[in-house]
Amino acid sequence: MTDHRISDLTHAVVRHRDEREWGQFHTPKELAISLCVESAELLGLMQWKNGTQLAETVASKREQIRDELADVLHSVLLLASELNISPGDALLEKLVKDTKKYPVEKAKGKNVKYDEL
Amino acid sequence: MTDHRISDLTHAVVRHRDEREWGQFHTPKELAISLCVESAELLGLMQWKNGTQLAETVASKREQIRDELADVLHSVLLLASELNISPGDALLEKLVKDTKKYPVEKAKGKNVKYDEL
Amino acid sequence: MTDHRISDLTHAVVRHRDEREWGQFHTPKELAISLCVESAELLGLMQWKNGTQLAETVASKREQIRDELADVLHSVLLLASELNISPGDALLEKLVKDTKKYPVEKAKGKNVKYDEL
Amino acid sequence: MTDHRISDLTHAVVRHRDEREWGQFHTPKELAISLCVESAELLGLMQWKNGTQLAETVASKREQIRDELADVLHSVLLLASELNISPGDALLEKLVKDTKKYPVEKAKGKNVKYDEL
Repeated sequence: MTDHRISDLTHAVVRHRDEREWGQFHTPKELAISLCVESAELLGLMQWKNGTQLAETVASKREQIRDELADVLHSVLLLASELNISPGDALLEKLVKDTKKYPVEKAKGKNVKYDEL
Repeated sequence: MTDHRISDLTHAVVRHRDEREWGQFHTPKELAISLCVESAELLGLMQWKNGTQLAETVASKREQIRDELADVLHSVLLLASELNISPGDALLEKLVKDTKKYPVEKAKGKNVKYDEL
Repeated sequence: MTDHRISDLTHAVVRHRDEREWGQFHTPKELAISLCVESAELLGLMQWKNGTQLAETVASKREQIRDELADVLHSVLLLASELNISPGDALLEKLVKDTKKYPVEKAKGKNVKYDEL
Repeated sequence: MTDHRISDLTHAVVRHRDEREWGQFHTPKELAISLCVESAELLGLMQWKNGTQLAETVASKREQIRDELADVLHSVLLLASELNISPGDALLEKLVKDTKKYPVEKAKGKNVKYDEL
């Protein structure tokens, strides 16, 4: 399993886009639509399954799941690039906010929203 | 704007999860649900707006958009980690498939699905 | 529990729209975006919960779930009206197709897609 | 174009479900997932298109759009039935709330959320 830099992955998707002159279609809204469409395709692979059946489905559809996950990341990187956002900085700064919203001592082992803690 | 390694970002979200003992709730299906919910929140920020109004909205809601994008990336990394998938490898390998589905000479400047090229 | 005609419900949402002069924003695409955003809000109410916890959540958030479900139906009716589609005819005709895709004798008790039957 | 009663449409989808013994898979959460998956399929039909191109796409994919819309309504009715909610009552009562959130004199011609009015 190779590690990667966000910048290298971003360069790859931006080059793929530019070679095809697709930037003209890639408004932030269209890229957000892509995120919804691809996330729902990923979720659709696991529809109606739970427990053991879910585990079996995740195993048997591993490649499709991997491809859909890649598509979601692809759109994340394109949208971040379009908006001149560093995905890594955004993630780490949001994590600081989440740490305050979900303090360890209150959130530990709880599956509720922060306003229900 | 700092560059980041996928592995460093993954470590950050996994640590955040483990400190809260949230791994027990993070089935692949729940993480895929998260992707849908967060992607739709991101899209919801741009609802009903197009053209100039969309550009203004994207500017005025920049921080919210950045946070939602971070949430989507957060779930991508958790799901990849859960499934023992390298997000970068998955992205680059999917990009090779996309390059075949959308050859430059046929796809250039076209906003159609590969089966309509 | 009152029964309703689709036409009466459609008149109600169309009047609500026209009084506010919102028709100008209601392209089929924006209404499809609404469906995604509202469906994800509905799903978001049940995030991270399963089994007994899910049943409790569905009970305690009943009014929110009911409102989100209403929002989804609202957008279905607006989109159908915009496209001059009869929602009931569309549903019944699609049900005929589904009956062929999922014949009772093959689909009974199975939670798989038609191409896996 | 035939009008329909919600109760008749509900009976049709419930019978379709019961003949296949699918009720065992239809938790409220799975039905909410269906709404997300089907709404995103509907939106996916209009991806990357706007203006004239969107109008052409909506025309050329009319039957697919109609089928996806039917699928969304199908899940709305199943979920409402599962939760013993009258879809029509829920819609009309939510419309009363929306009328208060978006008073005509303030909301007319505006495409903003109620907290921005």
